[in-house]
Amino acid sequence: MRYWILALGLCWALGAQALPLVEKQRFALDSFTTQSGTTLKEVAVGWEAYGTLNADKSNAILITHFFSGSSHAAGKYSDQDPLPGYWDAIIGPGKAIDTDKYYVLSVDTLANANAFDPHVITTGPASLNPATGKPYGLDFPVVSIRDFVNVQKALLDKLGINKLHAVVGASMGSFQALDWAVAYPDKVERMVSVIGAGQMDPWTVYGLERWSDPIKADPAWHNGHYYEQGQPKTGLTKAVAYIIYDATYPDGFNSRYTPPTDAAPKSDIRAGYKSVDELMGHAAIRAHFQDANAILYLVRASQMFLAGYNGKLEDNLAKVSAKTLFMPASHDRLLVPKMARSTYETLKKLGKDSQYQEIDGVWGHLDGLVNIQSQGQVLKDFLDK
Amino acid sequence: MRYWILALGLCWALGAQALPLVEKQRFALDSFTTQSGTTLKEVAVGWEAYGTLNADKSNAILITHFFSGSSHAAGKYSDQDPLPGYWDAIIGPGKAIDTDKYYVLSVDTLANANAFDPHVITTGPASLNPATGKPYGLDFPVVSIRDFVNVQKALLDKLGINKLHAVVGASMGSFQALDWAVAYPDKVERMVSVIGAGQMDPWTVYGLERWSDPIKADPAWHNGHYYEQGQPKTGLTKAVAYIIYDATYPDGFNSRYTPPTDAAPKSDIRAGYKSVDELMGHAAIRAHFQDANAILYLVRASQMFLAGYNGKLEDNLAKVSAKTLFMPASHDRLLVPKMARSTYETLKKLGKDSQYQEIDGVWGHLDGLVNIQSQGQVLKDFLDK
Repeated sequence: MRYWILALGLCWALGAQALPLVEKQRFALDSFTTQSGTTLKEVAVGWEAYGTLNADKSNAILITHFFSGSSHAAGKYSDQDPLPGYWDAIIGPGKAIDTDKYYVLSVDTLANANAFDPHVITTGPASLNPATGKPYGLDFPVVSIRDFVNVQKALLDKLGINKLHAVVGASMGSFQALDWAVAYPDKVERMVSVIGAGQMDPWTVYGLERWSDPIKADPAWHNGHYYEQGQPKTGLTKAVAYIIYDATYPDGFNSRYTPPTDAAPKSDIRAGYKSVDELMGHAAIRAHFQDANAILYLVRASQMFLAGYNGKLEDNLAKVSAKTLFMPASHDRLLVPKMARSTYETLKKLGKDSQYQEIDGVWGHLDGLVNIQSQGQVLKDFLDK
Repeated sequence: MRYWILALGLCWALGAQALPLVEKQRFALDSFTTQSGTTLKEVAVGWEAYGTLNADKSNAILITHFFSGSSHAAGKYSDQDPLPGYWDAIIGPGKAIDTDKYYVLSVDTLANANAFDPHVITTGPASLNPATGKPYGLDFPVVSIRDFVNVQKALLDKLGINKLHAVVGASMGSFQALDWAVAYPDKVERMVSVIGAGQMDPWTVYGLERWSDPIKADPAWHNGHYYEQGQPKTGLTKAVAYIIYDATYPDGFNSRYTPPTDAAPKSDIRAGYKSVDELMGHAAIRAHFQDANAILYLVRASQMFLAGYNGKLEDNLAKVSAKTLFMPASHDRLLVPKMARSTYETLKKLGKDSQYQEIDGVWGHLDGLVNIQSQGQVLKDFLDK
């Protein structure tokens, strides 16, 4: 009897909440020309899909991923997989992004930060340059948000998906989502920008620049030629720590790390704080599969971001025909809510159908990932309208 | 006739706003024992004073300075001095801190960041270690906010000032001000904490730690032994840029730096943004007279800060007898207003006379310096009560 109840509970849980196991697929292009004017051979990226594409291919939702993320937006790779997709809370059967209704797919970006993660497929500075047989390093061309969008579009073309029910992305993913709506307005019906912005400003350019500093300052970086000797681990770990720090907020951060009551730093200038060590340990885990050069390329792609790539934001937003929803996090210190709000206000001024809903929480920028379900109903209603 | 009006105007301006020329004075101690347990010989610091000490020495206001500052809180060193004191807006005849009524003084901290500024006198890692005849470097002991307070107290003792009408400080100066009120409650009648806090948390400890990263990552730092070869300029300049950045707020920052419309970074991964160069130029000017090691020591002094030095904040605040006023900046990202607010609330809970007034503005933390006059009347009324 108890087993039966357990089994029923499990079936309910699976039915209402879990996706079938997901798998990474590979999408390759023989040739891809970047916005910076370089033609790359042998471009390949990974992608995942959840749900079923309907007959007229009109139910696709594209999820565009954030700086440190990948196309693993939802689900598990195996029953024992300890790390489900980052937006499992909102993607799945019956959830805000309902995989019973929508075919949800996501694509690894070029120069993905997690270049050495066995579940990530990306072409970036760590990839072999066909011309030399060695990793590109800094000979890899500058890649842009528009390039990420164009790789995604090539995949959709191959799948015969001519229109997206929606494109939804957080942070750097929001840059891709909004750029989609500007670049291909006839293909995007709805756009959701979570913890996003319409363009960069000097403030954010420098905030991002700082992430590259510890990598470039590490003697093991060797101007990007480190693939034979090994990663500049000290610099990479610090960069990841900066990313974690800048993406959080005091209330959440302080709940996680040890208060500074340490004795040693009070008498030894060379001693450090336990909380700093804890953060470094956390960053080292995250950095394990990451490529230091890829971080430099994603910093640049983000610094360059302007929805529409060239021109002026307002002129570019005039091209948007999608309904849009902006969901910044109230305490975001990295992409401050004002950035999303001003983009939303410009769209409204242009007479567009646009919504604005902040996500509250103690984690700042990170609330766009860990606390998105608090606005799940708003998202669901938007996707249904 | 016009000249006469001009002269009258000038007299009025001088009478109402200007201080007489100020001069740096030197205060030396033959021996000073730090909280970390080291006895230093030949400790010397600079100090300045504005206004006149009254007969019973009851009108002294001590100004404690911020991280990058010095005892030059007000006035000019010469008629042509292009850099008046940082709080000229509130210190002077008829101003919020009225030098017609009060004797206002300020003291350079130990390990002052501006160790090579001809107008700063400080004992720190760049000072000669009497034991070796060479600069201390990292052999200088860890110094704390309490040590800064105790040097100031030694000066006041020498001047015969037994009671402070008030102690007023911004940022790291607020740490000293509040520590004064806890350490010597019978000597402090009023305490004003501007853009301050009661103690550090893991969030702020790491924010400060990041300022030391570029210095330590600079190969020219040599574990602090660089005085013969010269400063680690690259690391020091980056550290100062981090300090500027963390002490500001997007609205103000973006009004000052060039928007990221640069062409070169879009096609060259090695190219940089004009706004970043501008910030580095600004930082290089500020870094000109600074000592890289001193920044490490001030980072540590700040990280260690707890009003009362040891124990628990609430127990320590129970010792305060001063009236207190907390003036955080509404948009402060470095010492978030919550830190001042919670200290104020604890004092209120303990039945103390405490006030709270935020400073608004577009500069964040920096509003405590550049926009303090917006709350000048609140400050004036507090000092008069």
